[in-house]
Amino acid sequence: MDGSRLRHNIWMLLEPRARRARGLSWLNLCLLLIIILATVAAIIETEPLIVRGHQRLFSAMQYGFGAIFAVEYLARFWVAAENPGKESNWIKRWRFVRSLSAIIDLVVVLAAFAPLIAGDVASLRMLRLIRILGLARLGKLSAAVHGISAAVYSRRFELGVTAGIAVMFMVFGATLLYWIEGGIQAEQFGSIPRAMWWAVITMTTIGYGDTYPITAAGKFAAAFIALSGVGLIAMPTGILAAAFSDAMQAHHHGPHGEEVELD
Amino acid sequence: MDGSRLRHNIWMLLEPRARRARGLSWLNLCLLLIIILATVAAIIETEPLIVRGHQRLFSAMQYGFGAIFAVEYLARFWVAAENPGKESNWIKRWRFVRSLSAIIDLVVVLAAFAPLIAGDVASLRMLRLIRILGLARLGKLSAAVHGISAAVYSRRFELGVTAGIAVMFMVFGATLLYWIEGGIQAEQFGSIPRAMWWAVITMTTIGYGDTYPITAAGKFAAAFIALSGVGLIAMPTGILAAAFSDAMQAHHHGPHGEEVELD
Amino acid sequence: MDGSRLRHNIWMLLEPRARRARGLSWLNLCLLLIIILATVAAIIETEPLIVRGHQRLFSAMQYGFGAIFAVEYLARFWVAAENPGKESNWIKRWRFVRSLSAIIDLVVVLAAFAPLIAGDVASLRMLRLIRILGLARLGKLSAAVHGISAAVYSRRFELGVTAGIAVMFMVFGATLLYWIEGGIQAEQFGSIPRAMWWAVITMTTIGYGDTYPITAAGKFAAAFIALSGVGLIAMPTGILAAAFSDAMQAHHHGPHGEEVELD
Amino acid sequence: MDGSRLRHNIWMLLEPRARRARGLSWLNLCLLLIIILATVAAIIETEPLIVRGHQRLFSAMQYGFGAIFAVEYLARFWVAAENPGKESNWIKRWRFVRSLSAIIDLVVVLAAFAPLIAGDVASLRMLRLIRILGLARLGKLSAAVHGISAAVYSRRFELGVTAGIAVMFMVFGATLLYWIEGGIQAEQFGSIPRAMWWAVITMTTIGYGDTYPITAAGKFAAAFIALSGVGLIAMPTGILAAAFSDAMQAHHHGPHGEEVELD
Repeated sequence: MDGSRLRHNIWMLLEPRARRARGLSWLNLCLLLIIILATVAAIIETEPLIVRGHQRLFSAMQYGFGAIFAVEYLARFWVAAENPGKESNWIKRWRFVRSLSAIIDLVVVLAAFAPLIAGDVASLRMLRLIRILGLARLGKLSAAVHGISAAVYSRRFELGVTAGIAVMFMVFGATLLYWIEGGIQAEQFGSIPRAMWWAVITMTTIGYGDTYPITAAGKFAAAFIALSGVGLIAMPTGILAAAFSDAMQAHHHGPHGEEVELD
Repeated sequence: MDGSRLRHNIWMLLEPRARRARGLSWLNLCLLLIIILATVAAIIETEPLIVRGHQRLFSAMQYGFGAIFAVEYLARFWVAAENPGKESNWIKRWRFVRSLSAIIDLVVVLAAFAPLIAGDVASLRMLRLIRILGLARLGKLSAAVHGISAAVYSRRFELGVTAGIAVMFMVFGATLLYWIEGGIQAEQFGSIPRAMWWAVITMTTIGYGDTYPITAAGKFAAAFIALSGVGLIAMPTGILAAAFSDAMQAHHHGPHGEEVELD
Repeated sequence: MDGSRLRHNIWMLLEPRARRARGLSWLNLCLLLIIILATVAAIIETEPLIVRGHQRLFSAMQYGFGAIFAVEYLARFWVAAENPGKESNWIKRWRFVRSLSAIIDLVVVLAAFAPLIAGDVASLRMLRLIRILGLARLGKLSAAVHGISAAVYSRRFELGVTAGIAVMFMVFGATLLYWIEGGIQAEQFGSIPRAMWWAVITMTTIGYGDTYPITAAGKFAAAFIALSGVGLIAMPTGILAAAFSDAMQAHHHGPHGEEVELD
Repeated sequence: MDGSRLRHNIWMLLEPRARRARGLSWLNLCLLLIIILATVAAIIETEPLIVRGHQRLFSAMQYGFGAIFAVEYLARFWVAAENPGKESNWIKRWRFVRSLSAIIDLVVVLAAFAPLIAGDVASLRMLRLIRILGLARLGKLSAAVHGISAAVYSRRFELGVTAGIAVMFMVFGATLLYWIEGGIQAEQFGSIPRAMWWAVITMTTIGYGDTYPITAAGKFAAAFIALSGVGLIAMPTGILAAAFSDAMQAHHHGPHGEEVELD
């Protein structure tokens, strides 16, 4: 009886869908903070100038975060029995273990303790960054992400057509510059795939400056492609932004109704 | 009788306008895939690091795709007799042969087999890329492209005015920097056409970094031109995007009516 | 009587406001073409690689265009007597001579013939480019330019506020990087005006790559400024685009009514 | 009686909220001009090429502006007694002294005279630039800034979600390039924080050209990240612009009603 009540209370704290009040429970807020800290630590850890002389600290943080995530995993496993449904407790727990987010959590925990077994496994350490995806599961953000996915899906045709036109224009631009500059700058424009790098970096207006035409004909063609292409590449971006804006509007005005629609 | 029925069935599969159901027929879907594959192969083929040691494979692919397109061309020629109209079969076929898309297809087929006759004709190989334009003909994309063309045409005046103002401002900016920097950086700003390259790359915000002012006066003028010009060049882009968005809206909500208009 | 009728007919051809039909008269269309040709010639003439060996041709073109513009100026002067109003012919002509467009035209004519008097006056040759501004006077473009000016004026407050905020943020960003990088890269960030060049080129997202922070602190500050500043600088651009779009809408739908308003 | 009337008149001139007519009083307009001049002087003063040989002039300007701001501060202190409220004059003045804008003004005055006490205090001189923030307090701008803040606050959820997604995508992109290019370009991609600099400069489309991938795999990944990321980073910018536009609309049409709403 006592253990069952404790399990139910922890389930109420850990499971966002179990919560009726707005926002996150204090436990999930703590876990959110710890995930962000663990991610920032994983990012900083890659910089030798910062880590030098603090290897022990970063090592301790790694095991510390790993231990917290291990406890969280075991707790979620235990309270999964409280999930609604008529199945036995162990079937509910098996469902939890099979879920994508639980697999991610398990991988993160195993990656944190991998150095104890396999020495310095640099590439495994990176796996902790996957944990950042776990943030998308929490509370309101989850609904927002679902709304965005739906809005993007509803405009898949427009996105497909504009992306298709943009890709065709990029292939056209890359081919044109491969023709004109391919013989002169073999390293930069010596093949269409190489010229594609130029086309992408130009049409997104990034313009690193590592590849650009040097002949008069090449500059003329590039100027024409730049002026036309910048508008073409802006189209899928604009559609994506509009889809997102619609999703946000619906999400914001729909469930809570705290604001009046402008029109 | 038998041959006629076969011809009709192939016509139903090959001609997108003959299809009543949504989407493409299985034959056109296969051809679509083959066209994309042939285009990707033509793009990759230009990269020596990939082709090296696989010349035979790429050569085989070229003749393979060429053969498929040749068969497709002959099939389209044969079934053109099924096109609606009261003319004789051969007049209908002659009309097909004269059509732009048939000429493109024929050129692509001839270009694929050109090396058999004329040795290594590198520039002819490029012609296969034209085939990508053929994609625009297929199914829904065709309607979308028509809608976009119509929307762009209906805003030709706005586009013309904004493009004109943008070009005038570019000429003005290029002249200004030719005056200020022409004597110091002769290679970059020694004439107005050279300074135009700077103006285009600056106002589209690409900024490769191959040409930029180095004097204080030049930097002052360039900063002024950049701040004013970025907005001017964004105008035709914005109009194009709006025209496209209108066309997409009309296309999406018009014929199928699967979504309710928001307003 | 005969001379008066001729003068009236020429006035009808030269004066855009006298024309009731849409578009330009054939004479103004020819002049438009000649102005564009003269401008293109003036642009190309600055490029030594093109002019070399064709000095005579370009010299002849210069005097030819100069002669045409001189005849046009005299014709406009003569037919100015036909302008509506009760003043004497010479007062009307004096008004024409005083008008800004007539002064521009006169300067262009004088600049074309200046080499005959003063030898090679390179900087005077540039004056011919001013003639391009004369294009704004012709027909529909004139109404469009007026509409844009009115729309920009009606939003002067928004433009002022956003431009002010953007300038403040640029000064803030430049000061920050002057503090951080001023001692290390004296050439690029050694004073606030120098750092302003970096701020303008960064916030317009041009990014030539001639000036960028190299220290960790500078990169951190620059990343923060870039992420915040890009949105700020986009605001006046967006307002300008909206003002322009409104002006175009009003111009397009207003006087001619050839299209129905969408809403 | 006389002193009290003078104090009231000066209060009417100095306090923007006391003014019923639109715009600024002549005294505040003068102060506005002086603040702008002082800011421009503080900016220019950092450039050695301009200051050289004019040290005395800039020194005099510094003390001159300092003296004007000191007199303004004392005047504001004196007339603070005229502020509405039932407290004694000295409590009203104490409130003025405690206010943020008064503290800024005092710091600016002290910074201007610091060289008299402490020799050449270069970093203190910079403090004069803070004075530019004082501009936000004046007249209509103050209302506009309040409107913008409110509009941004009302969209804090959308801004948070989009900024969060953009940051996650940047971390993802930086990690990807750290994996691919970290071993080859240790200086540029040798850690995730280093690769973050690349991610920010790429996704804002600035593209300085100091860091870019050089391997084929790196270029492929970077092209994918650039094409996806440019749209993601444009989202918070678009939301900010829309919030600003709404605030401007409300500010413009609301209180004065000089323009009719379009819809």
